[in-house]
Amino acid sequence: MLERVAIVGTGLIGASVGLAAKRAGAVRVDGFDADGETLSKAVELGAVDHGAPSLHEAVREADLAVVAVPVTQLGAQVSAVLEATERTVVTDVGSTKGRVAADRSPRFVGGHPVCGSHARGPEHASADLFQGATWFLTPGPETDATTYQLVHGFVAELGATPVAIPADAHDRLVALTSHLPHVLANALMNQAGATTVEGHEPLASAGGSLRDMTRVAGANPRIWVDIFLENADAVGEALADHKRRIERVERALRDRDGGFLARWIGEAALNRRRMLERAFPDPGALQRLRVHVPDRPGVLAGITQALGAERINIEDFELHHFSPERGGTLTLLVAGEEPAARAAALLEAQGYGVAVSPVIEE
Amino acid sequence: MLERVAIVGTGLIGASVGLAAKRAGAVRVDGFDADGETLSKAVELGAVDHGAPSLHEAVREADLAVVAVPVTQLGAQVSAVLEATERTVVTDVGSTKGRVAADRSPRFVGGHPVCGSHARGPEHASADLFQGATWFLTPGPETDATTYQLVHGFVAELGATPVAIPADAHDRLVALTSHLPHVLANALMNQAGATTVEGHEPLASAGGSLRDMTRVAGANPRIWVDIFLENADAVGEALADHKRRIERVERALRDRDGGFLARWIGEAALNRRRMLERAFPDPGALQRLRVHVPDRPGVLAGITQALGAERINIEDFELHHFSPERGGTLTLLVAGEEPAARAAALLEAQGYGVAVSPVIEE
Repeated sequence: MLERVAIVGTGLIGASVGLAAKRAGAVRVDGFDADGETLSKAVELGAVDHGAPSLHEAVREADLAVVAVPVTQLGAQVSAVLEATERTVVTDVGSTKGRVAADRSPRFVGGHPVCGSHARGPEHASADLFQGATWFLTPGPETDATTYQLVHGFVAELGATPVAIPADAHDRLVALTSHLPHVLANALMNQAGATTVEGHEPLASAGGSLRDMTRVAGANPRIWVDIFLENADAVGEALADHKRRIERVERALRDRDGGFLARWIGEAALNRRRMLERAFPDPGALQRLRVHVPDRPGVLAGITQALGAERINIEDFELHHFSPERGGTLTLLVAGEEPAARAAALLEAQGYGVAVSPVIEE
Repeated sequence: MLERVAIVGTGLIGASVGLAAKRAGAVRVDGFDADGETLSKAVELGAVDHGAPSLHEAVREADLAVVAVPVTQLGAQVSAVLEATERTVVTDVGSTKGRVAADRSPRFVGGHPVCGSHARGPEHASADLFQGATWFLTPGPETDATTYQLVHGFVAELGATPVAIPADAHDRLVALTSHLPHVLANALMNQAGATTVEGHEPLASAGGSLRDMTRVAGANPRIWVDIFLENADAVGEALADHKRRIERVERALRDRDGGFLARWIGEAALNRRRMLERAFPDPGALQRLRVHVPDRPGVLAGITQALGAERINIEDFELHHFSPERGGTLTLLVAGEEPAARAAALLEAQGYGVAVSPVIEE
């Protein structure tokens, strides 16, 4: 691990970098934030050893400076750090990379840890935030090999998996994997919220699919407006393609073209299997168990204990709450038909009704 | 509970109706299915007491006949049951209601239990399938009050909440709450799957939002092609409105209109809060705990036991698996800042890093 790390912007991501770097063995973490309270909080939490009174003081002795300011200020802050230092390597954590790529210094490489952004502020920071996450790095033609190597090693020590990609390709990729899903979640949420059907509110009878698909709706306007604007061109391209795909479905519905719809759903099933193969060694073996459970403390413990004692590994686990009176539905994924059958038998012995089905249908 | 219930079509839904009716006290459940194997399986599972050799024999002595055949055969099968009987009340469980509403008999009322359809076949049936679920009923002008009352009481005894709605309003409502989300999930999955960005596959770096939003992609083509075709007009209207909403976002991106985007995300946040208020008494108090956990048996039991012993109620619970090597992220919802802080302290005492944040941001 590096000896001296500087964090510029000590909010959720910056403070988490500090905590993770300390845990991985960094000797000293200096921090600066334009907001004094955010900086004090990061110091108090142990994410920063020394809260510096200026950007210059924070970064001047650092081996690596990590710039974790809002996306609109990234370009200016990265330039300021490069100017304030002579040997310090500089990276950032912005979720779009096109603009910051303009900083053509041998000492700079852009970065983007993919770790969600449900919260803001150092008080939500965690040394575990990057564990298992992809951390994109966007070396440019001027980036020194030693710069890349240093940042690559640093993010790997924080528990992330570094993945190199050109800055513009990065922005088109995240437009698809993150920004387009966010646009669709917001659009769907507002469409369902704006419509009432003869006095019935769609939101009152929201099924699982609407709940799943609007999980990120309404998230962090202060962060997301900037992300959408910074990546407006790539998001616009993704939306244009989306509209063409929706128009193809509209045509199939008008023409009552069941053949197209069947092929289209089948293609989605194949794509979903490919996506799951990245997370699970054998998604075809995954079984889904659905269990209705009451809403009271201890229920989950009873279920997970019983499966744990039998060495049945729960691959994925979801409880969707209906209401205090009616309880919720617990969905478990278990790998393999035999362990799934044993799990179902154990839960049935506890008095639960269990429905088992394969995750990927043939 | 009714004495004699007949099930026409003994697949997942039909067999679950049989199991739930038996548990609620039905004296005898007769069943018929055009597929002999499906019928035998339902008898074997105890969902049906007597597998009848014909539709006529199954329904003729029944107080209530529940028609649970694929959506394209509903109209014909409901008519056949009405013709075969004189006093039997008839309902169906189809997820679109426009066509079956043509059956204008005083003895008929349409129905639709909203309970997901991840699986097919009686072997996945469960007496708990309808517990806490909305069960739409679509009485027409000819429906007798006694017919409505009988079916209303029956579905309530199965654990569902009956909600009356006109058939055409039902179809527009589910176009929004279920069919539109399914179209968007399939479209998004295929767009992410069809595109590679300079050799990088979006599916390989799918973040949480893409995973959440494609949960239902590729589901049950045999069921969903029929649903889309049966409800093509209402789904088409929902898609046209969706496209207009996407075009508004495209315009805002082109014009770099941050004000619109901020209002639009804020509106989505309000709508999401309204939706969550239907499931949680006080969604504003909900706190989200994020914990990185290794992939091994017993981990969930340890966590849920610790919280259960402290009487901390977990409102919602998700484990998203990364890989066997890297483990996964556990997300818990806990109501109230104080219980959330206690939960975080307990988990930290077990050596986990925990990030806490409010579910609904102000």
